[in-house]
Amino acid sequence: MSVAGRVAGVLEAFLPGDVRLTLTEICRRAGIPLTTGHRLVGELTAAGFLERLPDGPYRIGTRLWRIGAQAAGPRGLRELALPYMAELYAATRENVQLGVLLGDRVLCLERLRGPHSVPVVSRVAGELPLHSTGVGKVLLAYAPEALTERLLAAPLPAYTPGTITDPARLRAELAEIRRTGMAHTQEEMTIGACSAAAPVRGPGEEVVAALSVVAWRHSADLRRLDPAVLEAARGLSRDLADLD
Amino acid sequence: MSVAGRVAGVLEAFLPGDVRLTLTEICRRAGIPLTTGHRLVGELTAAGFLERLPDGPYRIGTRLWRIGAQAAGPRGLRELALPYMAELYAATRENVQLGVLLGDRVLCLERLRGPHSVPVVSRVAGELPLHSTGVGKVLLAYAPEALTERLLAAPLPAYTPGTITDPARLRAELAEIRRTGMAHTQEEMTIGACSAAAPVRGPGEEVVAALSVVAWRHSADLRRLDPAVLEAARGLSRDLADLD
Repeated sequence: MSVAGRVAGVLEAFLPGDVRLTLTEICRRAGIPLTTGHRLVGELTAAGFLERLPDGPYRIGTRLWRIGAQAAGPRGLRELALPYMAELYAATRENVQLGVLLGDRVLCLERLRGPHSVPVVSRVAGELPLHSTGVGKVLLAYAPEALTERLLAAPLPAYTPGTITDPARLRAELAEIRRTGMAHTQEEMTIGACSAAAPVRGPGEEVVAALSVVAWRHSADLRRLDPAVLEAARGLSRDLADLD
Repeated sequence: MSVAGRVAGVLEAFLPGDVRLTLTEICRRAGIPLTTGHRLVGELTAAGFLERLPDGPYRIGTRLWRIGAQAAGPRGLRELALPYMAELYAATRENVQLGVLLGDRVLCLERLRGPHSVPVVSRVAGELPLHSTGVGKVLLAYAPEALTERLLAAPLPAYTPGTITDPARLRAELAEIRRTGMAHTQEEMTIGACSAAAPVRGPGEEVVAALSVVAWRHSADLRRLDPAVLEAARGLSRDLADLD
């Protein structure tokens, strides 16, 4: 393994979302000896990429956050999406999410929420399943057929009693999403939460992201969210087309 | 220089906010020979930390964004601040900013904006001057005396005709900010924009951040923003105290 590869391994140990890791945990995850790890972690701490807590463990440093924030993909899409997301929040006071396809998961690029939004499992830069979330079902509906078939062939994990785990039912729902251009969930990922999601299209009409509102289940008719979500997704799609 | 230090240097070349850099630019900024740079950039690209564009230059990759997003400082403060910021946006439809002191600048941790918000110079993970922005004047008003004196002793750059460049006037205004607990700007950083900002306090009552609304200058009386900004900053301060 190259030294840059080892450095990458140390930093990637934090990717699953762990705020703090001990030196031993970092080395085990990175698959490097403790002596190598000790030296690399020390150098990365000196560079401000890691920070050492008074009681011993390490966490990702603000300096790395600043560099990562320059990433063109998430930054560009977020910058364009934010005005639409902010308006969706103002109209609903609920969670507003932007996700893209990453392998066979959703990568959450941004999430706005307010003091009264329903608690949800997503977090910025975290992953969500495709078959049980609004943004996920949208991305799955427009995903390459090979991905859809692979996902439908494997067991579909149930996160709540409402999660769709029957491949035939999910297949029918994906067809319906393509027909209507909207996806909905009803307590399929989180008890108490429902969502409405719509596709965001790139300059060539391909689906590049999904935008959703995740709201309290009891907040009246879910379909009332549709026009606002659809308008936001279409506005963002137009902006992306204009970039081209 | 250690290899980890060289890796840090390559990644830091992107810190000033450049979306794309050529290999030559990266090596010049990192102060490393082209051959070393070529190898490191190749390894970092293989690890997904950098992405190579079809026409040659490199940019920060989504993988590094994901790792950087785990940084405890920005992430923790943002998570707590976001509900207050979202409500401030809904109430004003203007730019809502969260900044912390970084050396003698403001580091912008988060910024919400909508389709009709006044255009501003700030960007997430970017820096702003202390003496000419709302968040900056708040942070400067409560900064260690040594920092204030150092800043006041040097020439204060003018960004607009409204920027305060007279040290005595700035000093008087900082005292007024400490007295009222609010800072205001009137086209001091950007023509057409004004702002209202308030301090966010940590568990020990120390000022740890500043929250602001940056609005169109012509949007009536600036003082009308004060109650909402103050309420949000106090709410966030209470949440930070509860964490302790």
